[in-house]
Amino acid sequence: MATGLSQFKAKTSLLPHTRRWRPAVHRAAVVSMDQNQTYWATIEADIEAYLKKAIPIRPPVTVFEPMHYLTFAAPRTTAPALCIAACELMGGERGQAMAAASAVHLMHAAYYAHEHLPIKDRPSNKPKIQHKFEPSIELLTGDGMVPFGLELLSRSMDLAQNHNPDKILQVIIEITRLTGSQGMVDGFYRELELNGSNIEYVCKKKEGELHACGAACGAILGGGAEDEIEKLRQYGLYVGMIQGLQNGVGKDNKGMEEKIEKFKILALKELESLKGKKIGLISSIVEPSLLVV
Amino acid sequence: MATGLSQFKAKTSLLPHTRRWRPAVHRAAVVSMDQNQTYWATIEADIEAYLKKAIPIRPPVTVFEPMHYLTFAAPRTTAPALCIAACELMGGERGQAMAAASAVHLMHAAYYAHEHLPIKDRPSNKPKIQHKFEPSIELLTGDGMVPFGLELLSRSMDLAQNHNPDKILQVIIEITRLTGSQGMVDGFYRELELNGSNIEYVCKKKEGELHACGAACGAILGGGAEDEIEKLRQYGLYVGMIQGLQNGVGKDNKGMEEKIEKFKILALKELESLKGKKIGLISSIVEPSLLVV
Repeated sequence: MATGLSQFKAKTSLLPHTRRWRPAVHRAAVVSMDQNQTYWATIEADIEAYLKKAIPIRPPVTVFEPMHYLTFAAPRTTAPALCIAACELMGGERGQAMAAASAVHLMHAAYYAHEHLPIKDRPSNKPKIQHKFEPSIELLTGDGMVPFGLELLSRSMDLAQNHNPDKILQVIIEITRLTGSQGMVDGFYRELELNGSNIEYVCKKKEGELHACGAACGAILGGGAEDEIEKLRQYGLYVGMIQGLQNGVGKDNKGMEEKIEKFKILALKELESLKGKKIGLISSIVEPSLLVV
Repeated sequence: MATGLSQFKAKTSLLPHTRRWRPAVHRAAVVSMDQNQTYWATIEADIEAYLKKAIPIRPPVTVFEPMHYLTFAAPRTTAPALCIAACELMGGERGQAMAAASAVHLMHAAYYAHEHLPIKDRPSNKPKIQHKFEPSIELLTGDGMVPFGLELLSRSMDLAQNHNPDKILQVIIEITRLTGSQGMVDGFYRELELNGSNIEYVCKKKEGELHACGAACGAILGGGAEDEIEKLRQYGLYVGMIQGLQNGVGKDNKGMEEKIEKFKILALKELESLKGKKIGLISSIVEPSLLVV
């Protein structure tokens, strides 16, 4: 399963002024780079298996075939994996965050499908993608994927380990805010409007908020306290902005390297006060080299 | 505010075999036709006022201007009003169901916007509508309206009278199921696929499930017991199917009159065992003539 993680893993340099927080993270780091890779790879594989089971090609085939296809056609982001990692960091079980992680992926995949619909006023700088289905089907499928993600989430409450309507509701609120008027939709509008003039803002609203939401949802489900949820949300925001600048809307823009380094420092600062064996694992999404012991 | 109710009000005839349940409904009917009209009109006005307040044209204007516009551009359906009436029938306050009713309208309005996007494989039998915004903006706005409706709902939990996360979660599940893969989306697919060959199925999936969802949400929030919720859901399904056959996808199809009468009977049968002063009011959406005292 291809992920955006490989780009992170290739980076091993650190700016000198990042050293301040190094020791704190080092103390908790008991994993090797190989272990990090394995950790993220198992998460990705588990999410993929969960989604394949949740969205089989079943009747009505007219609905589920395009939904299955478009779910896996969207490029992977690290936001769902971050959701799982945040849950595990807070002491939760992987299964508790699986539906939320899948819902986060479905939101992203739905927007990806809509973003690439052949519509006449679509900005010409958008790369064309291959379409397996007619536009009206891709439009409808995207429409169905957003609530389907929330359905998965609310159904996950039936599992004994997740019977906590308060937490599930909190996560639903997180996800609806993400995809509502002030979240990703605002980012897409701005992208249309600004046409590349404020990449950082667009990265924040798109990849940034997607990852912030993923991390916050995982923290909630893993039983994090309010300040831990907020720290992980902020961590996710930086992780997503780094992603956006490296692989997303900011990709081919010059002068991004410095911003990326700045966000790495800010991201890891958010983790400083958090405890737990898995702090090394979650921080390796930003800077794997740090954690080789 | 134009509603689909006027069509119902114009109908006063009843088929003879509807008499069986007449007396039961008559006993509860203490309202006049004028009162019925006033009842539905006040509900519609309250929902409109709530939506205007919830979606003002505020910054970011690029997001909220089209959202405000498309919210009110969609033709009204009776599903949100039915949500309020079901809540009141179960003894709840109007305010408790206001966010849910608005969310139901927003789902409908979002699908309406997407259904009318100028997309190249759109069936030619769809009437063209005026577009105030570019397609990409109307697409995005629809995408934002669905989660915004759920946001309204989850935020409504902050009101003292609604602090019941279980009920709100139940309503969110209802709405996500409505708009998810097995609900309205299936109806839209079938409409594309069947191209008019199974109007009844499409009416059931579109207007039917929209109204069923509205009624069930209202019943949940009003404190209905499980069997009452199910009866009102079924009532809503018939009400919506009647709507779809009279004013929606079934509009210009022949031989619908008989089906409509059949659904009226089935609809009112669902109400037979329910109690409450407002039974006359809620049933007047199907057959106002019944309830003139």
